[in-house]
Parts: sequence; structure tokens; C-alpha cells
Amino acid sequence: MQAMRLCSGPQAGPSGRCARSRTRCSAAVAGGKVYIDPVKKECTAFAPATVANLGPGFDWLGCAVEGEGDTVVARVLPDQPGKVVIDKIEGDNGRLSLVAAENCVGIAAIETLKLMGQPSCGVGLTLHKGLPLGSGMGSSAASAAAAAWAVNGLFGSPLTKDQLVTAGLASEAAVSGYHADNVGPSLLGGFVLVRSCDPLELVRLPYGGNGPLYFVLVNPLFEAPTKQMRAVLPRDVPFKSMIHNSTQGGALVAAILQGDARLLGSALDSDCIVEPVRAPLIPGMAAVKAAAKAAGAFGCTISGAGPTAVAVVSDADVGARVADAMADAFRTEGRLEVNSKAVVRLDPEGAKFV
Amino acid sequence: MQAMRLCSGPQAGPSGRCARSRTRCSAAVAGGKVYIDPVKKECTAFAPATVANLGPGFDWLGCAVEGEGDTVVARVLPDQPGKVVIDKIEGDNGRLSLVAAENCVGIAAIETLKLMGQPSCGVGLTLHKGLPLGSGMGSSAASAAAAAWAVNGLFGSPLTKDQLVTAGLASEAAVSGYHADNVGPSLLGGFVLVRSCDPLELVRLPYGGNGPLYFVLVNPLFEAPTKQMRAVLPRDVPFKSMIHNSTQGGALVAAILQGDARLLGSALDSDCIVEPVRAPLIPGMAAVKAAAKAAGAFGCTISGAGPTAVAVVSDADVGARVADAMADAFRTEGRLEVNSKAVVRLDPEGAKFV
Repeated sequence: MQAMRLCSGPQAGPSGRCARSRTRCSAAVAGGKVYIDPVKKECTAFAPATVANLGPGFDWLGCAVEGEGDTVVARVLPDQPGKVVIDKIEGDNGRLSLVAAENCVGIAAIETLKLMGQPSCGVGLTLHKGLPLGSGMGSSAASAAAAAWAVNGLFGSPLTKDQLVTAGLASEAAVSGYHADNVGPSLLGGFVLVRSCDPLELVRLPYGGNGPLYFVLVNPLFEAPTKQMRAVLPRDVPFKSMIHNSTQGGALVAAILQGDARLLGSALDSDCIVEPVRAPLIPGMAAVKAAAKAAGAFGCTISGAGPTAVAVVSDADVGARVADAMADAFRTEGRLEVNSKAVVRLDPEGAKFV
Repeated sequence: MQAMRLCSGPQAGPSGRCARSRTRCSAAVAGGKVYIDPVKKECTAFAPATVANLGPGFDWLGCAVEGEGDTVVARVLPDQPGKVVIDKIEGDNGRLSLVAAENCVGIAAIETLKLMGQPSCGVGLTLHKGLPLGSGMGSSAASAAAAAWAVNGLFGSPLTKDQLVTAGLASEAAVSGYHADNVGPSLLGGFVLVRSCDPLELVRLPYGGNGPLYFVLVNPLFEAPTKQMRAVLPRDVPFKSMIHNSTQGGALVAAILQGDARLLGSALDSDCIVEPVRAPLIPGMAAVKAAAKAAGAFGCTISGAGPTAVAVVSDADVGARVADAMADAFRTEGRLEVNSKAVVRLDPEGAKFV
């Protein structure tokens, strides 16, 4: 079926072939079904890396950062309504499954098509991994966000980013865990507070003012032991620790909305529940945190589930020194090679067409 | 010693009697000591009620509200440097001690004089209680804030409100508990996040935008069992509950700064740790909460340590209906008389001279 733009608005066309749709889209009725048609043959989208588990923001706060990310090309598969095929994956060293239902881009695409209703065609996907797997920088979420946005673009963007987060969440649930604090910001950009996953309720937190804010991300060559990372989380926490983390989480939100990089770094640095049990599983992490602050960072913690460490600064030159100090600490104290280090800004846009 | 204004600035006067002071004040050197002199014979200050323990903001978030409050008149006690005497207390039904070191206004005044350095006189205090004792509306904090502000005013306001919070905190520690989430907002006004008490670190949270925000406060005739209120707090909490309360605390801060009354009420309503164990100690509280929401409130919780219940609305008429519904629930379900009900705005100013 060729791309057709039959209507734009609630009016039915003269032939009765155009049905009202919940969303801005192209739609056609065939055999009693309302089909949504693609508006182009191919669509490419990029989605950025994200930093989640922001200290006391564990499980509910994340942000998108500029720089590397994942790219997905979605193409029309004619006459295979709803079908999703993964054509190719590059940059994963052959580690990711090409079975759509087992892969984060495949699942995100399937869920996006479901959200649309009745797509008149299927979708073929090519994934270019820009982010290392298991790095703690939201690799699977970036893939899912790019896939959802590319597939949505293929059909003329009938769905909003907010709506697509549910598609990304389904993908994350299958491959990484039921949490939206990576895929939310990877789609939406900026800081995102995940107030609830079911029903999904997100609160966007624009960074206040125009003051400078940089994240220093240092990724060591180390596979964080995912199962152990989960296993060390305590079943119960002292009441006082709960109050402490709630307070610092509140301060973190205030710092974001008031554009206070110093408070942001300091609050992110002050988790007394998760970081203390997870940091020992990443060789050198304690030294990296100390080195970051000694070099001028406002604070430092684990990015996502690690092993990447993230620090906050308000000056790019200071950021470069902090990155060097963190990398040195990973090498000398952690005996780890460093895969990458970067000083990046917040990405206010999130997923975008390229 | 009479009030003298000897200098304003770091310059020494021609007679050498004017010494440099840390703070804006009147100062005189006598017998080698730098004295700070009063600038008037009497000074009167008012400080407002506050709502603390704002649901998931337990122990770290409070706000000042318009309406009732406490008033303190501070007068000069000549030739009794540093001495604090309580002249009179009205409106307490004789329940408060007239011994300065045992009373919140006395302690706040003593600490304020200490912060100033070497006052050349003492202070006599009269307290007019506008707030009921043990109501959960920050009664002791309002007394302390009014005392600190009145004494400070007597000496030409050498100290800032931020500095005076430490005096108020010392008072609260002695009579109510070591927490600044009432005395902070009673002095400063608006919403205040207490990031740390030692060292004291406060973050002011201005309510965003100009949208309407009202608090409905219903105070039943009931003495909340303070010891039990403390005793029921759990020693440990489930990790998931910690995440939930941190998330909702973050959402509460976002709601304040973004001026979202609906989210504010909803987040304040969602504490899953403290309110569930404290509400059963206040007769009818569960029914009051349900009645508030059924009548249109965005959320409802316990104010402070109770027994006052607080609900959030964005319309004064809705607020009046919510107040009636809450009062009815206290009467019918809690079998309690209602002492007062009010629909009030945020007090952005805090302590002030009258």
C-alpha cells in the first residue's frame, strides 16, 4: 500500500474513506478496518544517552545528555500490516538478538504500532548502536526511544513523545527492567521525574535559568554485575535514611528547577542508601568519586547501574580536569581501562529525526 | 543605656567609641567590650502558623500560611545585658512556663541575643498566643519566630531571617524537637526545604506562577498524643516505600516550584510511611481525608504531628465546602468537636513587624 494522506482533521472525506482518528495521521478504511498509512518509505531517528538513578533520585529521576546516542532507521514493509523485522544491527559486536520480540528496538516498534491502531504496513528496522551496552548510560532506552520515534515518524508522527514513553517502557520492561527513568528522558529530553509507571505519569523538570551545567561521564571497561547490582539493594532501610534520601531527592528537584548546579551536584552526591552498597561492586568507584570532587566537581555518583561514573560541574574546563582525575582513579585504584570520557551538556530535545 | 546609633559602616567614629561589627547595628565600646545597643524601647513582631510534615515531606518541608499566628512584644531591660525575662503570656490558659530558659520565646530571645554578640541591655517579652498549643500548626515555632524577630528589631535588625533560624531551631530543639520545618517557614515565609539542620541549610521554594493555592485547615478539639505520635514511627521501612516517598517528595517540590496545585495536593496526599501509622491515632482522620477529596480537595494529610488536618484546593469556594466536609467528618466519624476551620493562602512573608 502506498503512502496516502487522506485527511487532516475530524471531517470525513467525500468518499467516506477517511475516518476520524484519535491522532494526527493518515488513515484509510479497507475491509471495515481503519488503517493508518505511512507517509514516507523510510525514517531515521536518533535518541540520546541518559543518566538515571541520579543519587537520591534512584528509580524516579533521569536526564538526557548530549553527545553519543543510538540511531534507528525504520523502513516500510509493504503488505505486512503490523509486522516488525530487524534488518540489521551495527555496533553491538553481534551481542543483540535479531528477533524483534526479543530486542529493545523490535519491542518498542511493535508497541508503537499497537498504539497507532491498525498500521497498513509493517516495519523493518536498522539499529546503529552509538552507546556501549551495559554502560549505565541508558543504552537499551536510547535504542527503544530511537525506534519508537523513527516508527512514529514513518507514519507522520501521529503519537506524541509522551504517548510513546509507554512503548519504550514496554521495551525496557522486557530487556532491562520496568522503569521509565531512562526511556522517558531519552524521548523527551531534559530532566524527567517518573511519578508513576502504572499509570504512567511523568513530570518534566526544565533546568532553571541559563546557568552552565555539565555532566562528566567516565565509562570504564568493566561489565557491572547486573544481578549483584540488584541483589545488594536492601529489603528495608532505616527510617532516618529514608528521611535523608527523601530530603536530598527534594533538594535535587529544587536544584534542577532553580538552575543551581552546585546544589544539584551536592544533592546527587548524597545518596546514603543505594550508592553505598553498589559502589563497592565497581572497582575504584569510591576513589573516582573522591577524585572528581577534589578536582572541582560539585558531586559524583554512579550513572544508572554503572559502571559509568557521573560528576556535575558548571565549567567545561573544570569538567575536563575532573574527567582526567576520574579516569586516573579508575585506572590506578580500580585497575580498569577507561573506555570513554566526556564532558557533556543536558540534551533538552531528546529523540529527534536525522 | 540609651539607644545610640554610633555608626553605619566599617569606619570608626572620631571618638573611637564605634567599633566594626559583623552586622548592621548600633555598637558601642565600654570597658573593652563591644556592645550592641537597642535602637528603640519596644518592638512588636508577628509570626504565622506553619504546616510541616507535608506528607512525603515529613521532617524536611514546611510552609507558612496566612491567618492566625503569634505576636511577641520585646522591650528593653536597661542595664541588664543579655538578660531575658518573660513579662506576660496571654492566650495559653496558663499552660506555658514564665521561666525564660524553659519557654520557646525565652529561648529564642536568649539565642538571638547570643547571635548578636554583646547586647548592652536585656529584653522583656510579652507573648500573645494566637495559635492553639499542640495543634500541629507550628504553635511553638510561631512563638519562637516572633520572639527572634521582635528582639532583632529592637536592636535595628542586625541579623537576617536566615541567621535567626538557628535561634528558632535552638528553641524548637528544647521544647518541640530538633527540626526547622516549622520555624524556618514561620520566619522566612513561603515553602522552605530544610536540607540540613547541622549545619543549617535551607532552600526557599517560591510557589511558581500566579495560580491560586489555598490550604484548608481544620483543627479538632483533641490533644494528639505526642509520645505515641513519635513511638509509632517505624524503625525501618521497606525499600519500595522509601522509593515511593522519595518520588512523591520530589513531585511535591516540583509541584511547588511549578505552581501546580493539583500535583501539590496529590503528592502531599501520597505519603505511604508516616501518615498510615499516625492517622489512626487521630479519631476520624481517615474519614476526614476521604471527605476532603470527595468535596473537591486535591489531597489531604495531617498537618505537623496533628491533630489538625490540611487539604489543598485551588478555589476558595471549593475550600469552604471542603472545610465543612472535613469538620463534619471529624464530628461524625471522629466524635470530636471542631475548634477551628479556615481556608488560607500561603504567607510569602513570614515574621513581620506590627
